[in-house]
Amino acid sequence: MQLAHMTWPEVERYLEAHDGIIIPTGSTEQHGPMGLIGTDHLCPEAIAHAVARDDEVVIGPSITVGMAQHHLAFPGTISLRPATLISVIRDTVMSLSRHGFRHIYFLNGHGGNVPTVQAAFSEIYADSTHAASNLRGEGPPRCRLANWFTLPDVAALARELYGDAEGQHATPSEVSVTQFACPEHIKSAALPPSTLHSSFPTDADDFRRAYPDGRMGSDSSLATPDHGRRFVEVASRAVKADFARFCRT
Amino acid sequence: MQLAHMTWPEVERYLEAHDGIIIPTGSTEQHGPMGLIGTDHLCPEAIAHAVARDDEVVIGPSITVGMAQHHLAFPGTISLRPATLISVIRDTVMSLSRHGFRHIYFLNGHGGNVPTVQAAFSEIYADSTHAASNLRGEGPPRCRLANWFTLPDVAALARELYGDAEGQHATPSEVSVTQFACPEHIKSAALPPSTLHSSFPTDADDFRRAYPDGRMGSDSSLATPDHGRRFVEVASRAVKADFARFCRT
Amino acid sequence: MQLAHMTWPEVERYLEAHDGIIIPTGSTEQHGPMGLIGTDHLCPEAIAHAVARDDEVVIGPSITVGMAQHHLAFPGTISLRPATLISVIRDTVMSLSRHGFRHIYFLNGHGGNVPTVQAAFSEIYADSTHAASNLRGEGPPRCRLANWFTLPDVAALARELYGDAEGQHATPSEVSVTQFACPEHIKSAALPPSTLHSSFPTDADDFRRAYPDGRMGSDSSLATPDHGRRFVEVASRAVKADFARFCRT
Amino acid sequence: MQLAHMTWPEVERYLEAHDGIIIPTGSTEQHGPMGLIGTDHLCPEAIAHAVARDDEVVIGPSITVGMAQHHLAFPGTISLRPATLISVIRDTVMSLSRHGFRHIYFLNGHGGNVPTVQAAFSEIYADSTHAASNLRGEGPPRCRLANWFTLPDVAALARELYGDAEGQHATPSEVSVTQFACPEHIKSAALPPSTLHSSFPTDADDFRRAYPDGRMGSDSSLATPDHGRRFVEVASRAVKADFARFCRT
Amino acid sequence: MQLAHMTWPEVERYLEAHDGIIIPTGSTEQHGPMGLIGTDHLCPEAIAHAVARDDEVVIGPSITVGMAQHHLAFPGTISLRPATLISVIRDTVMSLSRHGFRHIYFLNGHGGNVPTVQAAFSEIYADSTHAASNLRGEGPPRCRLANWFTLPDVAALARELYGDAEGQHATPSEVSVTQFACPEHIKSAALPPSTLHSSFPTDADDFRRAYPDGRMGSDSSLATPDHGRRFVEVASRAVKADFARFCRT
Amino acid sequence: MQLAHMTWPEVERYLEAHDGIIIPTGSTEQHGPMGLIGTDHLCPEAIAHAVARDDEVVIGPSITVGMAQHHLAFPGTISLRPATLISVIRDTVMSLSRHGFRHIYFLNGHGGNVPTVQAAFSEIYADSTHAASNLRGEGPPRCRLANWFTLPDVAALARELYGDAEGQHATPSEVSVTQFACPEHIKSAALPPSTLHSSFPTDADDFRRAYPDGRMGSDSSLATPDHGRRFVEVASRAVKADFARFCRT
Repeated sequence: MQLAHMTWPEVERYLEAHDGIIIPTGSTEQHGPMGLIGTDHLCPEAIAHAVARDDEVVIGPSITVGMAQHHLAFPGTISLRPATLISVIRDTVMSLSRHGFRHIYFLNGHGGNVPTVQAAFSEIYADSTHAASNLRGEGPPRCRLANWFTLPDVAALARELYGDAEGQHATPSEVSVTQFACPEHIKSAALPPSTLHSSFPTDADDFRRAYPDGRMGSDSSLATPDHGRRFVEVASRAVKADFARFCRT
Repeated sequence: MQLAHMTWPEVERYLEAHDGIIIPTGSTEQHGPMGLIGTDHLCPEAIAHAVARDDEVVIGPSITVGMAQHHLAFPGTISLRPATLISVIRDTVMSLSRHGFRHIYFLNGHGGNVPTVQAAFSEIYADSTHAASNLRGEGPPRCRLANWFTLPDVAALARELYGDAEGQHATPSEVSVTQFACPEHIKSAALPPSTLHSSFPTDADDFRRAYPDGRMGSDSSLATPDHGRRFVEVASRAVKADFARFCRT
Repeated sequence: MQLAHMTWPEVERYLEAHDGIIIPTGSTEQHGPMGLIGTDHLCPEAIAHAVARDDEVVIGPSITVGMAQHHLAFPGTISLRPATLISVIRDTVMSLSRHGFRHIYFLNGHGGNVPTVQAAFSEIYADSTHAASNLRGEGPPRCRLANWFTLPDVAALARELYGDAEGQHATPSEVSVTQFACPEHIKSAALPPSTLHSSFPTDADDFRRAYPDGRMGSDSSLATPDHGRRFVEVASRAVKADFARFCRT
Repeated sequence: MQLAHMTWPEVERYLEAHDGIIIPTGSTEQHGPMGLIGTDHLCPEAIAHAVARDDEVVIGPSITVGMAQHHLAFPGTISLRPATLISVIRDTVMSLSRHGFRHIYFLNGHGGNVPTVQAAFSEIYADSTHAASNLRGEGPPRCRLANWFTLPDVAALARELYGDAEGQHATPSEVSVTQFACPEHIKSAALPPSTLHSSFPTDADDFRRAYPDGRMGSDSSLATPDHGRRFVEVASRAVKADFARFCRT
Repeated sequence: MQLAHMTWPEVERYLEAHDGIIIPTGSTEQHGPMGLIGTDHLCPEAIAHAVARDDEVVIGPSITVGMAQHHLAFPGTISLRPATLISVIRDTVMSLSRHGFRHIYFLNGHGGNVPTVQAAFSEIYADSTHAASNLRGEGPPRCRLANWFTLPDVAALARELYGDAEGQHATPSEVSVTQFACPEHIKSAALPPSTLHSSFPTDADDFRRAYPDGRMGSDSSLATPDHGRRFVEVASRAVKADFARFCRT
Repeated sequence: MQLAHMTWPEVERYLEAHDGIIIPTGSTEQHGPMGLIGTDHLCPEAIAHAVARDDEVVIGPSITVGMAQHHLAFPGTISLRPATLISVIRDTVMSLSRHGFRHIYFLNGHGGNVPTVQAAFSEIYADSTHAASNLRGEGPPRCRLANWFTLPDVAALARELYGDAEGQHATPSEVSVTQFACPEHIKSAALPPSTLHSSFPTDADDFRRAYPDGRMGSDSSLATPDHGRRFVEVASRAVKADFARFCRT
């Protein structure tokens, strides 16, 4: 179930038996000449919906814009400042916590979000740590950030299908997932080889100098919709198990 | 075109001839016993996509969570603090502005967003006003907030169809739009009459005391998918004209 | 009574029978060639003092500097950033609330303040909404923003006296009020016709380009001190009634 | 001249020959059983207006609410958070600086403002220190905080008239100034002796425990309007000289 | 060389030939019954000083307090909020950057700092990304966060000496380093076995419930000063190489 | 005892009988051609350790970087923004307060920190003042800022040894203390006379124009290690007495 498609009495009933929610978390940023700008949220959305198809679990509204300042030299990228993203995560968790959600699972599609989202969790927990003594009984809800692309089975499949051509950005695995999820938006482009550098760029201009077409060592052209289907299957199975484990902590 | 489904070279080409973008802006909040929690972003999304079907215009990622603190006593509502929403708007506009977008059009579905989004525009313009003199040449991009439900033709249709039963929240007009846009998520519920109070509630508990099932003077049960189709037609036509005018300023 | 002229035991006694306060809220900004820079706070001050002459009501310290970034290309304008004004409102309300004031009425003279002050109210209410459950008993104080120039009787009088020459900034109605309130500071200037544009300017330079002498479609020279007297009478009567109603909510 | 009573062309002319401004800076806080809540801004206002009567100098809008958290256990006190007051000072200076004011003189009536206002100056100067190299030519405007009550001649007069009974808050000297400036608001009250403690209180409750009627070691009842006249004369002479010196730096 | 022990002309000379600096970064937090509260900054300080003994490199002032909210249920722990630590890092980098430092190397001793420091780097880079076009020439300085305890040779030595008894907090390896660096502060305590949990605690109370004496699966009693000497040797060699590589990027 | 060298059970035992802590507070900033960049924290550290040698008192981690924006035109200076330093102080006090520390004594070596640290105390106390009524029982911990160089006995010794040559920055007294504390880092330089200006500089460039080698009216070359020994003795005796008095309030 998507939260957006429920009524509040339906949420109230869900909370009688559950206290977990999955929030697809991504970015709106360039993904090279043939990757979609929405790739990083389209992927966790596709996986989350596959999870929700079989299981009774609520999928919250996607965080579609994340921390992507290093991609801003490419048109179409939108980025939140880290401080802004921290506030977005914090307000989201505080809102859900008020209703009784106690396990908030951010299914992430963008590596650049990781430090900021983890810092946001620390802000939330610090709020609780510093709360006056008579407010401390319940503690904060438990938060978890899980990257779909680093789940062991997903990483193994990517390695098997693409080896080093997976690269680090605009990867064939994520492009495959969007080709499967949005078959009407499959693009093609001539792709010269892209070489990975040993150090990560700093600001947007530095990134574009290092990676002129936006890919980071990946051959996006290896993507196929059928690979995408396989990634979604593997990832949604892994997320289901991981989310269930998480909700029991 | 949705920005999420484009590549960065496609955005680059779009910007050679255009500099406008529409951003559906809404909320994730209770809409009474039969209204969807996503109503306030589902409506502007449906209208924006209708606009984009006919016209060459880019639709940016929706702002699905807005300022809805007064609805937080109902499960499922998620709200950003005003300060957070101001930062989200500001970061979004600054990102788009870097690429050459000069007309940012927020198509809004939630009255509660209005003051905060307007304050955000003032923050953005103030950044420009206070910029050092040699940076002032270009000025800030122009921003506009347009509520689909207060467009004259839309308001007239709502009055014609529902009269006073339109109310102010969980209105039959917005419920109609979601029934048209999401026919698989049509809900029903027994609805006692809801009476409007003369003063607006303050915090979440005050709101729930005043409006126990979440509606504000509306009879959501008058909604039909066909009404929704008519609202989308009327609204998308009006938005197209308004957006075109705005892009010429 | 002005709060500034009371002692704390006098405030304590007032609070035994009342819990309302009026705070004149304005701006320090250019008002064209003959309007005073203080116009936007001088007007609500004059009206509030007329209210307090007849009624037992406390008038708090004026907010004399508001959100006026778009006027900063004219010498003498002082503007708070929206975020600053939000903090000023919030700190003011929190202070008054600690003493038992439960109805805080901002009598506003500057249209540019409206979104920011409304956003400030939402921040205050959100503080209460997010407060831990055992703190929620009392709820936040109730806040109201009332523009003296949009009170129905005031707007009718302006229409009657000036028609379209009222314009939107440096209006003859507000200039009249300051001529009545500050008879020793009546100015005159040659005023060419000023034409209103359909879209509101963005930053300070954009404003000055659009409205070179600072007026927005108004003929300030129609102002007279006697008109000012009439506006203060009409407005203070309306504010008295509105404030009394508000204190009963 | 008060800025509030000028037009923008008048300010423009003033700036052709001057670049200084005086901003009365105070507080809205309890001043014991017979001192006015507005004392701390009424005093610098009275002195600034005396300066402006003789000299060509612009007096900006008063900062009537300052940092007074420790007085909040007494009804009527309004306090800004230090962070808010820093923003207010910064926005004020940035606005004035844009027009060509280069010497901003805060004439202060409240000791509790001192650290925060000084920290605000450092924030303003730090903005300039961190500005990119090509923006650094002009540097920030010069700011000065001057307490009227610590001017040597004023302090000497207070010592002469009251000795130790001057105390530290609700002092007879400041009460005298308000009696001279607002003769229609002279109050009286039975005043038991007030004893100064060696350490300054922390929060509002701690303050009220230490100083139950709000005075700090002062005998406010020694105040007379004629003393007030003398304080205003002495202080305005000293401020004139100090401001002139400051404007030459 | 420690920056604290240099004069500014010495720094000026150093910058003629170098542009790198190492900043030991740690925490002030409980480290179990026998680990020192300063462990997390004492370790990177000891290693940095070993590096500086042989090489010409400037060691900046340690960041001794980091993000340690989860340890606050144990007396002696001091923690910065994530937002505060972000500001500290940003101000530090901006200051050093003004002088010509272009490679800022944070040698970190506390895992809990990692996300926040990485988010701080993104804030710094985003400042540059969003800078107006004519300021973009130079770009931001390059920042790097290196954990001494995850350097491959260090981790290998810890595995060899302690296997699983290394644990995750109050580890014998870090205790060894402090015993070597501060031989006069070697403590002992009876240590029951400590078991690692699969999920990381949330707030301070949750942490103390999970790990009652503060250790996380470690046997601190295996530490010896001689181990400490070996860790410092291995780590300083690795840091030297890593820092040199970094300064060439 | 340094907090860094204690274990948490040792802190727990200390808190059974004491509730005070001394935090050396300084800066990392140029101190002229022969003064050390760390002077302002090295001095209070040396004095605090002398206090702790004789008395049972815990010395917290030094704040080595303070508010020094005006020194940033000299290489090696690192400065926190005032807002950042306020947050650092606040987080430190909140952390210590959670464990039962009720008297937090900042032993300061840098005049530039004073307003900001005092503003930080007001922020901390305001948190308590605004806390909901049922949280107000205990009140905030008591904070004190003491400058070692303005202690009467210290100032008298400086006057006796150096007269006017003490100056205001890079003074022979502080240089003496660092020569005593760090005998291996004694520097020398040819020092032309340095003249004090009557007004304090604004930003970093203004400071360097006014004081080209960084000293402010001081003759640092009068410093000797033996003077340093005497200053530490005099200061530590005075701090001991002052801290004891403070802990009894």
